[in-house]
Amino acid sequence: MPEDFEQLWSGLHPVGRSAASGGYFRQPFGTAERECHAWFVEQCALRGLRVEHDGNGNTIGWWEPELDAGLPVVLTGSHLDSVLDGGAYDGPLGLVSALAAIDLMRDRGVSPARALGVAVFAEEEGSRFGLACLGSRLAVGITRPDQAAALRDRDGVALPDAMATAGIEPALGRSTWLDRVGCYLELHVEQGRDLDLRDEPVGLASAIWPHGRYRFDFTGQANHAGTTAMGDRHDPMLTYAMTALAANKQARLAGARATFGRVDVGPNATNAVPSRVTGWLDARCETEEALSSLVAAIETQARERADRDGTLLELTAESVSPAVNFDVALTERLLALGSRPVIPTAAGHDAGVLSAAGIPTAMLFVRNPTGISHCPAESAGMSDCLAGVNALADALTELAR
Amino acid sequence: MPEDFEQLWSGLHPVGRSAASGGYFRQPFGTAERECHAWFVEQCALRGLRVEHDGNGNTIGWWEPELDAGLPVVLTGSHLDSVLDGGAYDGPLGLVSALAAIDLMRDRGVSPARALGVAVFAEEEGSRFGLACLGSRLAVGITRPDQAAALRDRDGVALPDAMATAGIEPALGRSTWLDRVGCYLELHVEQGRDLDLRDEPVGLASAIWPHGRYRFDFTGQANHAGTTAMGDRHDPMLTYAMTALAANKQARLAGARATFGRVDVGPNATNAVPSRVTGWLDARCETEEALSSLVAAIETQARERADRDGTLLELTAESVSPAVNFDVALTERLLALGSRPVIPTAAGHDAGVLSAAGIPTAMLFVRNPTGISHCPAESAGMSDCLAGVNALADALTELAR
Repeated sequence: MPEDFEQLWSGLHPVGRSAASGGYFRQPFGTAERECHAWFVEQCALRGLRVEHDGNGNTIGWWEPELDAGLPVVLTGSHLDSVLDGGAYDGPLGLVSALAAIDLMRDRGVSPARALGVAVFAEEEGSRFGLACLGSRLAVGITRPDQAAALRDRDGVALPDAMATAGIEPALGRSTWLDRVGCYLELHVEQGRDLDLRDEPVGLASAIWPHGRYRFDFTGQANHAGTTAMGDRHDPMLTYAMTALAANKQARLAGARATFGRVDVGPNATNAVPSRVTGWLDARCETEEALSSLVAAIETQARERADRDGTLLELTAESVSPAVNFDVALTERLLALGSRPVIPTAAGHDAGVLSAAGIPTAMLFVRNPTGISHCPAESAGMSDCLAGVNALADALTELAR
Repeated sequence: MPEDFEQLWSGLHPVGRSAASGGYFRQPFGTAERECHAWFVEQCALRGLRVEHDGNGNTIGWWEPELDAGLPVVLTGSHLDSVLDGGAYDGPLGLVSALAAIDLMRDRGVSPARALGVAVFAEEEGSRFGLACLGSRLAVGITRPDQAAALRDRDGVALPDAMATAGIEPALGRSTWLDRVGCYLELHVEQGRDLDLRDEPVGLASAIWPHGRYRFDFTGQANHAGTTAMGDRHDPMLTYAMTALAANKQARLAGARATFGRVDVGPNATNAVPSRVTGWLDARCETEEALSSLVAAIETQARERADRDGTLLELTAESVSPAVNFDVALTERLLALGSRPVIPTAAGHDAGVLSAAGIPTAMLFVRNPTGISHCPAESAGMSDCLAGVNALADALTELAR
């Protein structure tokens, strides 16, 4: 099985990989992500899985029982898109493991009583259209078709046009195939060091922290960088800089997470005081109350500094996701198959979207020895990955009874 | 004359102007700047000026005496390129005024004994290839042809390719036409409020402050913005933010100027701790010693913060221009034509490059009522502009005797 698993990986390994950084650039509906998608469809065909596409860019490979009694089906899955310069495991590990788990179940002679689907959800990272879990949000109906149709990437390309260019006929809106799903189980590489600190290869998720993305638009007055006296300036870069430092400090104080990882400056010229700086805050806390307090504290410091700099701040919550508590009964049913740690995460997942939509959902995490994720150095050991495949196969066998 | 002057302006007014901001986007060798250039060539033709192009992208319109005794010639001029989203006057005012001054001299029956050249220098702002006064630097030989040929814009286009695309045959290197130049006089809109505070429409320049551009490359470790504990991060955005604030503070303390107006972030994704942040510092001080001290103080604070953040800083001086003291004899000769304030400036100009190359040089400034420059709100009053034309015509008449 290790050889089969490595061979499965090898098909994906070079796709969209930067020779310079070793990281992955698999933006949704772009060439590299489409190549990964074609790889998935091919792997489904090799296994005789029926492939279904929906109009939201999601794809499902179905293993259907010979005698289908129409029971609610079992779904697993993940995503193939990456952040810009991302790691190899975030997303693909769940899909490679699902295919390997099906192989293992067949080797073991398992014959499921229910259909078992492997779903590839589109734009999980939000790296192109700014809205994470876009494919699953559209599928469950949390994001409306008109909202999604209005989304544009950094080059101004609208979502339906990006889909059409990738050969997908866009038909945005609730996905009917989800009506048959009785439960969802997503396997994912851990994006922290919790399992490593506990010396455990595989864990189950208890919850996803509430998570928000907020756009801070700072406006000032463009001016000559040489001749404008320091006291005559209205420089939004200063307000932004203080806000980025304030976010870090407030998150430390709150035991939370706050990051300014994306900035856009106008006119962005060396010899001009900027007229505007836009920064995006990513904030996550254990509770929704704590998230609101954290963002309010950052906003207060930003506005104080804006007053001092003579700049203006407009604050827009681009997306706020409430806490997700995974299905307790489902998680206990999986724990009965073998004792594992049950840990929370601050990362969003399609599993959170399906759970919020009322589908009983659970997650399996595979140990990440460094905790590093969303970058080329993201890693997982082979034996831990195989432990994940085993755990997934055991779980799917139980759920598809 | 006001009508003629306004009509001259009207030909340039709409070219490269953003309907949204009212600012100008006239990047060197781009469509809008080339249109301005064509306008200049046409205006020269209308006046019977002989047009000469050199292989550095500079263009000169020559008013030659009927009997040319080969005396050293008088040069005036400025530039047509703008910063990104710049104002109407920075550059064009010098050229519109030069053409209007020639018209005025002819109306007055002036017949110069020496040739009089109106030069349009290429890429004065450095907004495309990052090196300000590129055309004049190449012309005097301060910038070597191989250095210039290696310059690339943000899209990776090399300078010679950009020139060729604009229909210029690149032949980088010292410009022989400069050998005939006996003195240079540049008229420019003031980029501060000195004349306004003195209630004077026109002034002469005493000196240009030393000026440097420095690239700060901060390197950290990309990571997941949600799951990475604050204490496990190496976030270069924090180091950058502290450095931008330190630059502002140190410049205030030193009575100098320091600006971070341009930033580039990788991967620049909302949900990723950045792996790298590059910021460009523009710094100017009254003396070269003060400039070195200012940059050293900013660097010290940046490195202290980098240690704390676990990030790395690489600092590169992209260009450092020494102080320019304009020609005292020339300035006194012009003062004899009429008393005017003599003021320093912190803005770089082609006049500074020609002066450093040993050409006796002076500058005329026209009042800017707000002091605002390098942005759409840059302005100058009509009567001040006409006072500038008069002053320039008087000066050129004197110098071309």
